[in-house]
Formats: sequence, structure tokens, C-alpha cells
Amino acid sequence: MVPVSGPERARSHLQYSVAMSELVLTLQCPDRPGIVHAITAAIVAAGGNITELQQFSSPDSGQFFTRIEVQGSDAAELREAVGVQTAEFGASFHVDDATRRTRTLILASKAGHALNELLYRTHSGTLPIEVVGVMANHDVLAPMARFYGVPFEHRYVTPESKPDFEAEIRRVVDEQDVQLVVLARYMQILSPELCAFLEGRAINIHHSFLPGFKGANPYRQAHTRGVKLIGATAHFVTGDLDEGPIIEQNVVRVDHTMSVPKLVQKGQAQESQTLAEAVRLFAEHRVLADGHRTVIFR
Amino acid sequence: MVPVSGPERARSHLQYSVAMSELVLTLQCPDRPGIVHAITAAIVAAGGNITELQQFSSPDSGQFFTRIEVQGSDAAELREAVGVQTAEFGASFHVDDATRRTRTLILASKAGHALNELLYRTHSGTLPIEVVGVMANHDVLAPMARFYGVPFEHRYVTPESKPDFEAEIRRVVDEQDVQLVVLARYMQILSPELCAFLEGRAINIHHSFLPGFKGANPYRQAHTRGVKLIGATAHFVTGDLDEGPIIEQNVVRVDHTMSVPKLVQKGQAQESQTLAEAVRLFAEHRVLADGHRTVIFR
Amino acid sequence: MVPVSGPERARSHLQYSVAMSELVLTLQCPDRPGIVHAITAAIVAAGGNITELQQFSSPDSGQFFTRIEVQGSDAAELREAVGVQTAEFGASFHVDDATRRTRTLILASKAGHALNELLYRTHSGTLPIEVVGVMANHDVLAPMARFYGVPFEHRYVTPESKPDFEAEIRRVVDEQDVQLVVLARYMQILSPELCAFLEGRAINIHHSFLPGFKGANPYRQAHTRGVKLIGATAHFVTGDLDEGPIIEQNVVRVDHTMSVPKLVQKGQAQESQTLAEAVRLFAEHRVLADGHRTVIFR
Amino acid sequence: MVPVSGPERARSHLQYSVAMSELVLTLQCPDRPGIVHAITAAIVAAGGNITELQQFSSPDSGQFFTRIEVQGSDAAELREAVGVQTAEFGASFHVDDATRRTRTLILASKAGHALNELLYRTHSGTLPIEVVGVMANHDVLAPMARFYGVPFEHRYVTPESKPDFEAEIRRVVDEQDVQLVVLARYMQILSPELCAFLEGRAINIHHSFLPGFKGANPYRQAHTRGVKLIGATAHFVTGDLDEGPIIEQNVVRVDHTMSVPKLVQKGQAQESQTLAEAVRLFAEHRVLADGHRTVIFR
Repeated sequence: MVPVSGPERARSHLQYSVAMSELVLTLQCPDRPGIVHAITAAIVAAGGNITELQQFSSPDSGQFFTRIEVQGSDAAELREAVGVQTAEFGASFHVDDATRRTRTLILASKAGHALNELLYRTHSGTLPIEVVGVMANHDVLAPMARFYGVPFEHRYVTPESKPDFEAEIRRVVDEQDVQLVVLARYMQILSPELCAFLEGRAINIHHSFLPGFKGANPYRQAHTRGVKLIGATAHFVTGDLDEGPIIEQNVVRVDHTMSVPKLVQKGQAQESQTLAEAVRLFAEHRVLADGHRTVIFR
Repeated sequence: MVPVSGPERARSHLQYSVAMSELVLTLQCPDRPGIVHAITAAIVAAGGNITELQQFSSPDSGQFFTRIEVQGSDAAELREAVGVQTAEFGASFHVDDATRRTRTLILASKAGHALNELLYRTHSGTLPIEVVGVMANHDVLAPMARFYGVPFEHRYVTPESKPDFEAEIRRVVDEQDVQLVVLARYMQILSPELCAFLEGRAINIHHSFLPGFKGANPYRQAHTRGVKLIGATAHFVTGDLDEGPIIEQNVVRVDHTMSVPKLVQKGQAQESQTLAEAVRLFAEHRVLADGHRTVIFR
Repeated sequence: MVPVSGPERARSHLQYSVAMSELVLTLQCPDRPGIVHAITAAIVAAGGNITELQQFSSPDSGQFFTRIEVQGSDAAELREAVGVQTAEFGASFHVDDATRRTRTLILASKAGHALNELLYRTHSGTLPIEVVGVMANHDVLAPMARFYGVPFEHRYVTPESKPDFEAEIRRVVDEQDVQLVVLARYMQILSPELCAFLEGRAINIHHSFLPGFKGANPYRQAHTRGVKLIGATAHFVTGDLDEGPIIEQNVVRVDHTMSVPKLVQKGQAQESQTLAEAVRLFAEHRVLADGHRTVIFR
Repeated sequence: MVPVSGPERARSHLQYSVAMSELVLTLQCPDRPGIVHAITAAIVAAGGNITELQQFSSPDSGQFFTRIEVQGSDAAELREAVGVQTAEFGASFHVDDATRRTRTLILASKAGHALNELLYRTHSGTLPIEVVGVMANHDVLAPMARFYGVPFEHRYVTPESKPDFEAEIRRVVDEQDVQLVVLARYMQILSPELCAFLEGRAINIHHSFLPGFKGANPYRQAHTRGVKLIGATAHFVTGDLDEGPIIEQNVVRVDHTMSVPKLVQKGQAQESQTLAEAVRLFAEHRVLADGHRTVIFR
């Protein structure tokens, strides 16, 4: 996959101008008294100012979660201060540069609506990701990727070639420092090994309101069942098909007059919006895993 | 069950003042050319004027459905004219008096939110039903029924007493000319025999967005799965639990902070609204069955 | 207004069982570095544990806002510790007992849907308020108040008697230690003096999506304009009619077939739900004023 | 404006495969008994079969409206039959070929989200329009139009050049047989003359929930007012700014944390979806004018 550069790409770098704090601290640990005070002490010690703070203690898992936006501090310094202050809590945490765009690899097939939404938003500066490339098992979306100045690679995936394609995905993830893999209506099931490799950093869009209508042809299933709303679900990819932790869901009203193709049309807007929103939440470090559930700090 | 009368009840009769046409014709038959023309000929012949007409031809079942509001015609006359004109189409149809309130029996347990919504709306004149009584397997809702001037009967339902209670339900349905039975969070599963007896005239509210989270404790299931929306589904009762044709569904956004009791609280408003809306649709003769699906003429 | 007691009322006290932390600290002050750390120091000093913390710094007003749920601390002790720690920040703050129900006076007229929702939710334990009474300018809702064991007082309000009625409202607010006054479709405009007296502690429901359709007959206005959604807005009462800070809004889809009475019917559910939600947010100390806007910590 | 052809364009013609009936009859006239029967007589006479029929009688205007999908009939024949049968009713009607894509001219400025949605949907076959060209007062969207194979023309519009640009719009509308003009966030106010010329065939997207926040900077107005939902409104263009008949509206929830740029980002998805939906409704002949309101046959 050859990186593409040019005016399109250069431009997209400049446009994400929504003011964000410089650093984002996300942290989780077993809940107990004094954690917030310890963390804020670290931030004060590192010369930082809190501009946004959200906190949640899960009664189910007994875990404490927080996401804090910090201005005026150095990342390394903050990392060290937080490490020192929270050592006794057994905390795991990340300090991310809020202005750094999340490096993202998109997997696609033939349907272009989800890819179009992701690329348009990225280009227009409303989605803080850097798309390192699109890999697809069909070539029909190559012109769209080209238009947005994004590298595109395709291979017809057969049972025989699948291991090779997956190996290529892993190689790109490793070599290109990919932080997020997005399955934008990629119609292939990933192998358990690839799912494990991508755990916590791959998001899929399923075209139903999970847990309803798992598996193939959810719109046909929805039509047969006669539901009055259809939905879309963005979730982390796990080895358990359509069972990964849910990040975002939306529904839209339908009625008895709508055939399956109409449901497909109506649903595509939900899919695109839901996936793009989930990617935004992830890229802004707003999604934390709490076992099989997610904590979303909006 | 002793009918109750009094000022409360008398009043509710007077208040459903939203102007409706005098008659509602609902009809279904195998689809073929000329049906609408034949029906409108019958209406003209019976001296009626069409004030609202909706029509749908189902590509799945090949059935034709229509709902027509007619003014200025006599019911018997219209019935005869439609019968004559549509005999060759193999149509089944009903002519209902739009101003007649649907005679309704409500089944309840302990939770009062759905019953409260139904009784308040009926009383205030926004739900065109006549509640002939409330039958419950607990007595906690007796004061509410009494307040609204509605007969209330309760029996603790055990495996032994269940046949008796169900026999009583059948008796009330038959003797009181009940057109609709509403399960307003009635926590008992009806026997297959009672389901068959009530087919097409019993509506249940399930506290999830079906087909997700069938069966017991759907809010707990929703919490465990970590969904971002919870819902409610009003559906016809069939012998196949939570699988009856869906009439109405709604969802509401939830987040990771909400415990199961919070989901229950949040969900109750959806349940009440969704059930009341389904009852309104049924009582206005807007719900037609198309196999396992419903045609809803709003 | 004679307080009513009895089984209904006693019972409602027992049912609000959703576990809340013992204390809620809400605080606002001009934003600057170190505030969160100072506050958490106070909480630690008072022996408290943070179970929920939300924070917001308004770029518009330069104000810092926070809401913190604290367990294990004494209210007086926490109040003193916070006062000491935040003195230099010019903070104004409250420490409330989260288990104490907000003492509420409801004003009503003839329409019962909003009152019914508030009383039912309070009674069933899903709304943490204590209704000290209902005052109305009509007597039709007296039976409903009586059913829920709530004192009811009515006076026909004329231009001449209005000052007396408002004086009575002020008296009840003062004598009964009322924390919140709810205008549940109370059809009278409050005098500027009463608005000033109730500033920040009176919530009104307006039956439109403000700022559209201010003033009288919003559903008729909505019908004339041909909007495709109608809404409801819960807002603080100010002397500037329908211009107070907004707390909650909802909309529902409508179509061309709906007459004004149908819009009224459809809208009532939105009004009731929106008002009840706004009251819940206020009663849980989740609503903070930021000039003409509100900060809502859900 | 030079028409563009090529693989992209050829393809888009082939993809709108959702089965529609061959003809769509839309008709309106003063309401009186017998209209539906007369129309169906005409359809029978012309050898047609009704596959979808919707009807509405407006109590406000006393007008009768219908939309009927007809299969198996010849357009000219149907037109004549309907004309004969409905002459006495003073009806105005259209018979359209349902498979013919609505010829559409799009006006744009710099913001690309609405244009992108329209072009992507058209290209992917989910929007039954034929875009004859994009005219803009900036050139930044030229590459997007080119990518989708659509002619693009731009002129910087100044007070002096505006009459020329508007004359060009009229010329294109006339010469290219344009049936619909879409203002996809076109930031210029059309002259009264052009509004009159385009009456009933120009759709604008306004970035607020009208009638709230008319005029400039609606997101800023929304932020200042502190609303909890923001919206978008697609409406017919009239000489009265932001006052034209409304076709479609949507809202999305926002909160106090969102700055104006965040509202803009959040709102863009609503704008794009709402406009595309309004265009679909128009292109499928589902929008009829009832004075200042619209009848939408979904």
C-alpha cells in the first residue's frame, strides 16, 4: 500500500480546528476512596489545568473510570506524575495528545455509504482521524478512496487467500502505527486470531439494533418479524460474532409499506451516522471498556 | 364483577370529542385490479362520503388492505353494499361505528404505570375505549381502578387456580361483549387455549425492543448486554411467547451510568406510552393483520 | 391548606429506593486552575468518598461548575471543609442530603395530564419529591389530588383576586419550606414580583418547542405553520414570558392529517414526560444556572 | 455548463432499482362526495391497476388531495381518462412516469456536506433524481461535482453580479427542463423574482428547527438560547425568508458542553439527512401544497 500525499490530504490536516485541550488522561482501576484527589494532585504537580473531567464508578465491576482533559502540562511529565500518584491504586492509564489524529485503517467491501461518511467527515475536519488506508475485498470503492487521497488496496478474499489478506492487515496495523481498524460494512468474518490481535481497537457496524437480528441479512429478518423500528449498532469486534461491547446505537421508524430494499436504503443513513459517531468517540478517547460493556464519556 | 357507575364514568363518555367519521370500513382480500373502484362504488351506492382512505397491497402476502372512513351512510346499508360489490373478490371486511368506544378488559399485576396511563387517557377522553373492568392477580391496583370508576377483580393466581382465573376471563369477554383484552404488565403467561381464544384481540406490552431480550427480566438482560437504547414493544398475544405480531415500538437512550432499577424507571414511560398508542390504533380500527406482520393505517 | 396523611402518603416515602449517595455537593465559581483539587481535598478531609463527579467549565461565562456525590461524610463537616478550601475561589455551593425529597408545590388549572404524571411518579417512588400541595384556579383536579393524599386548594383567579392568590402561594412557599414550585399547565401568568420571588426555583412546562410558538395556543400556531414535529419545553420561570432558561425539551413527529385537537392529544404525553424529567433533574440537584442557560449534569 | 458523461454517470442511471409503479397520479380539488370513485373509474377505464393510494381531505382548506400509483396503464390514456372523469370537480392533476428521475439543479456555496449526501445517494441509486448541474458562488466544491460526473459552474456573487447569476439559473432551469432546484446550504438570498419563478419547485435547507432561529447564524442563536435539541428544516423557497411551506424536519439532542462549532458539526448530519429526505419525497411526487402547509404522502 503506497501512501498518497497531495493537496487533499494536506488540507485535511489543517481543518480539525475544534478546540480541544492538549492532553487527555484516561484511567481505570479498582474503585476506592481518594482516587480523584490523587489524580488531581498529579495534574497540579504537572502544572496542568483541568478543562473537562468525567468520572464513573461501576457498581457491577467495582471499577473506577475517569477521563480528564488537561491543558498546560507536558505529556511525559503528566504521565510520570500520574504514575507516581496512582501506583498504589493499581491503575492503568493513558495520556494522549488530544490534537493527534487517530491513525485508522478502514476495511470495506462494495457498499460505499459508510466509507463515504467516514472519508467526507475526515476530509471536512469533523472526524479527528488520519486514514492510513482502505483495504477491501472488492475494487469498486477505489475511486472514492482516490478522490479523498487515501491509499486503497484490494484483494478478492477466498477461503484460500483469507490468511494472506489478514496477514497483510496485521502488517499494515503494525508498520503504520494503526490505532483503530474500522469495518465499514466489510462483509467478511475475521478469524479468531485477527479478532484477538485487534481486541479493543477494531470497530464494526452491524446493520441491526443488536441483540436483535444477529448474523446475515438483518434487514430481511427485520422485515419478516415486522418490527416498527430498524437500527444500527457500532461495536467492538470480538471473536464472538455480533457480541462485542456496544459503543453506539440508533434506530429509525419504518412501516409496513417498506420492502426489504427500502429498509436497506433507510437503514444506510443510520449505519453511516452510527459508525461515524462511534469512531469519533473512540478517536477522542471517550470509550473505555468495562468488561463486556462500555463506558462512554460524551 | 359489578359494573360501577357514577360521575367519573359518565363524564368520560362525553369527552372523546375529536371528530371522527361515523363509520370505519376495514377490508382485506387477495389483491387484484378493480378492488378500490368496487369498494368506492359500494360507498357511493350507500350514500356515503369518503373522508379518509388508506390502502396497501402487500407484495409478501399478495393481500390487499384498506381502511376507509365514511360519513353520511347507514352501517347496515354500507355493509350490504360492500358485501355485494366485493363478493367476487373473496373479501373479509368490517363496518364499525367510529363513535363507539372499544369495550376493553385490562389484565394487570402490581405495577401501575401502564394501567394508570390507560385509565387516565380513557378518562380524559383521549383514548376511545370503554374499560369494562380490570382483572389482576394482586390487589394493589384496586384503589386506582376505583378512583377511575372501573370494576376491579383480583385473585392470587397459582398453578391450581390459573384455569379458574382464565375461565373467568373468558366469561367476562363473552358476557361483557369485550372487543379487546390488554395485558398492562400482567406478569402471567396465558395458556395456549386462552391465547387461541383471544387471537387478534389481545395486546401485550413487553418491556424490551423485541426481538431483543425476550422472556424474563429484559431490563437486566439489557444492562448486561450494555445496549445504548432500551425499548418497549406492544404486540398481539399469541401462543408463542413474545413472538406475536408487533403493533408499536419505541426506544429511549440510556447510558453506562444507569443501574437496572434506573433502566426500569426510564423504561416505564416507554411502556406506558407504547401500550396506550397501540390500544388507540386498535380501537380506531387502524391495525390489520398480514400474517405474522401488521398493517398500521395511521 | 391542611396537610394530609394516611397510607398513601406513608407508602410513597418508602418507595424511592434507587440507591443515591448520601450527599450532593454542587458548586460554581469563576474558573481557574486547581479548583477540582481543592474540592477533592475538602472531601478527603471530611472523610467522604466520591461516587459520582461531573465538571464543566463554560467558555462563554468563564464559570466553573461541578456536581459531586459523596458518601460517608457528615453534611456539616463537608460544608465547612468545602467552605474553607474554596474560599479563595469565590465559590458558591450547596451540600444537600441526597435522600431528602425536594419539597414541591404544584400549581395547576383544569388539564390533569401533567399533574397526573407528577403525582403518579411521586407515589410510585420514581420522582424524589414531596408534594406539599396543589394550588389551582379550578377545582376539577381536586379528586386526583385527594386520591394521591395531597392537599388541594383552589380559588378562581380574577384580576382582583390574583394578588391574594399569589400572596397565598408565597405564604405556602415560606411556611412549608418549599424548594420547588412546578407550574403543571397552570394557565395564569405570574406577576413580575412572584417571578422574582421564585427565581431559580419555579419550573414551567410550555407546550411548544421553544423558542418557536411562544405565548397562547402554541398547538394552533404549530398547525398553522405546518411543522412536522411538535414539542414541549420545561424551563425556569422568569419575568420574561417563555424566555426562562431551558431545562429539558422533547419533540414528537406529527403529520398533515392531524387537526389541532389531535396535536393537543399527541403533545400532552410530551408535556407530561418533559416536565416530570425536568423536575427529576432539579430534585436530584442536577440543574445549575449559567446565566440564561442551564448546565445539566445527567 | 457543459454536460459531463462517463462511467460514473452511466452507472448511476442503472442503479435506482427499487420497484416503483409505472405511473403516479397526484390530484387536488375542492372536496366533495364521489371524487375517489370518479378517479378510480378513470383508472379502470385506462386499464390501470392501483398499487398504492393515499387520500386526504383538509378540513382547513376544504381541499381534497390524493396520490395514486398505477400500473399497466398508458400515461396519455390515463391523463385523458382522469381529465374527463374529474372535469366537474375542478381538479388539477399530474400524471408522472415513476421511473423517470426528477431533473434537478443544485445551488451550493462552500459547505459540502449537503451536496455530498445528495450526490452520493443519487450515485448509489437511493435518490431518484438526475442532477443536471451544480451552480455555486465558490469553487471549492468543484472537485466533488467532478468526481460524481456532474457539471459544475461557479461565479462569485456580488450585488452587481447577482442578477446575472440568477438569470443564468433561470436559463438552466428552462433549457435543461429542470423540475427541482435544491439549495444545498446556498448562502445567498434569492431575489423575489427568482423565488416567484421557482415557486413550488425549489427546496431549501435551513439549519434550525423552524420557526425557531430564522435568519443568520441559527447555531449561534441556539447556543445563546440554550436549547436542548437542535434541528434542520427543509422547506419550499418563497419570497418570505425561512417562511416557506415545511416539507421535513429533524432534531438531535445537544447539551451544555457543546460550543457553537460543535453544534455546527452535530447539526450538519441533520441538515444532510433532512434535505435528502425532502428531495426524495419531492422526486417521488409525495409532496402536495395545501396553502402554506404541505401534504406529505409517505
